[in-house]
Amino acid sequence: MQQVEVLMRCQGADCHPDLRAALEHLLEAGGKRIRPTLGLLTGRMLGAPHERLITLAAAVELLHTATLVHDDLIDGALLRRGIQTLNAQWSPPATVLTGDFVFARAAKLAAETDHLPLMKLFAETLAVIVNGELTQLFAARGVASRENYYKRIYAKTASLIEMTTRAAAMISPMDEAVVEAMRLFGYHLGMAFQIVDDVLDFTGEQAEVGKPVGSDLLQGLVTLPTLYYVDEHPEAPGVQALLAGRYLLERGKMETLVQAIRESDATRLALGEAQDYIDRALQHLSSIPKRAERQALEDLAHYIVNRRI
Amino acid sequence: MQQVEVLMRCQGADCHPDLRAALEHLLEAGGKRIRPTLGLLTGRMLGAPHERLITLAAAVELLHTATLVHDDLIDGALLRRGIQTLNAQWSPPATVLTGDFVFARAAKLAAETDHLPLMKLFAETLAVIVNGELTQLFAARGVASRENYYKRIYAKTASLIEMTTRAAAMISPMDEAVVEAMRLFGYHLGMAFQIVDDVLDFTGEQAEVGKPVGSDLLQGLVTLPTLYYVDEHPEAPGVQALLAGRYLLERGKMETLVQAIRESDATRLALGEAQDYIDRALQHLSSIPKRAERQALEDLAHYIVNRRI
Repeated sequence: MQQVEVLMRCQGADCHPDLRAALEHLLEAGGKRIRPTLGLLTGRMLGAPHERLITLAAAVELLHTATLVHDDLIDGALLRRGIQTLNAQWSPPATVLTGDFVFARAAKLAAETDHLPLMKLFAETLAVIVNGELTQLFAARGVASRENYYKRIYAKTASLIEMTTRAAAMISPMDEAVVEAMRLFGYHLGMAFQIVDDVLDFTGEQAEVGKPVGSDLLQGLVTLPTLYYVDEHPEAPGVQALLAGRYLLERGKMETLVQAIRESDATRLALGEAQDYIDRALQHLSSIPKRAERQALEDLAHYIVNRRI
Repeated sequence: MQQVEVLMRCQGADCHPDLRAALEHLLEAGGKRIRPTLGLLTGRMLGAPHERLITLAAAVELLHTATLVHDDLIDGALLRRGIQTLNAQWSPPATVLTGDFVFARAAKLAAETDHLPLMKLFAETLAVIVNGELTQLFAARGVASRENYYKRIYAKTASLIEMTTRAAAMISPMDEAVVEAMRLFGYHLGMAFQIVDDVLDFTGEQAEVGKPVGSDLLQGLVTLPTLYYVDEHPEAPGVQALLAGRYLLERGKMETLVQAIRESDATRLALGEAQDYIDRALQHLSSIPKRAERQALEDLAHYIVNRRI
């Protein structure tokens, strides 16, 4: 992981000093580095060549970082994980371009894996992520549809995690069946990861999550806990306001709805669904011979569903 | 070229309808398609495989389009070539994401050329372009430095044109010497292209260029005609205001300076330098056996330096 950090940081070496500082800031801000960790563990488990694996892990994390830069700009978010976002300090133009630069570097690292199918997968995944963000931007709010929800969290989160474990398997001396098993492992893990995030948006404390409790719902964005609640309480005043698209106009009702969801069974049901995804992820992993890295991947899977923030 | 157009347009096929409409709008807005034309002619001249060449040409033009989307957003430009920019109609978030989407599609097409060195070159060129834009954003204005100017126009324009002719040669059954000759052809052509653009910013009529005459200079951005003028007239009041970084405060003097440059020898001298670049470009082309495409490339080179807009 340290080699991955070094490789990510040296991407700004030949750049304008302000850009270098921005990259440094973005990487300092950290995050849990779930994606490169997943990639490294998967690749080591399957015998991926070391250098190539480090390059892949850095490419994945930089791609993730680039999408966060543009996301925060779009949301006007000033904090992420308690640290100032780039757009809190920089002008929008500088933020747009810094995101572009991090994309460019991610693409360059991906190319340096010297693996064409991986390059294609990388570009396709970027298109899926961006198309998902655009769909979310354009989509009518206040829509309670599971199909819509699963599509959204796939584009937003699961697609990149799926790509990570799949790509790590692709650069390993493994047959198609293993690559597919690792893709499915990543897919299910990624879906669980986002569901847990969506549950934490309700159950977390504002100080921990860094956003108001129920922030998605207050903006009309329906996630899994809300879907469960709507099924059980279609007549609740907050649900009516939400489905009528009046979530901004009837803020009081929406805040009551957030509280009701917190106190209901909905978050437990959603977490149960996340646990189901984790179980399916682990099933796909079970075809791989047991090694230290497999155990670490299992631990990571359990962590994802049990984490607090 | 028609196949390139079709390939570019079908990139939005599986996307949100609004995104598809945006892509359509961007491609309708057109432009001269200099880059794909250059790529197609170079590749056909050198025997590049047809499908791969079409894919490369579409990738290059989409990369160019993506940088324009973010550029126009950054500059707050509302018109390009007399047609509304995306950001004139869309919110900044939608514009950022549409640019990202076009990047993603360009990267995907580049990957579909199935040529790793080309993929790397593609990613590196994107990094050069974005680093150049960031440098321009951060750089102190009112700096009259040739070194600075050449670096800037390389990053802004020549790097992508250089990449285009080089990449078209790379996918052709040609040796390194030909690839290098075509790289140098593109490099010199690209430098000339931007110098002519910078001259037209002074000599063009506002209605044609779609911007006020001397718009770069009025924003403190020093291009080649200004560099020539500053050499000859270091004491002119406008030059003093410019070099002191007072271009915004002393608008009257700056407008006088624009007029003075228009009426001076500076634009002719700058055009002469563009012609020198074109001559060097043609020298590199002269090592290639004469074919119809070579003649067309020569014509394109002459057009670049003689065009009116």
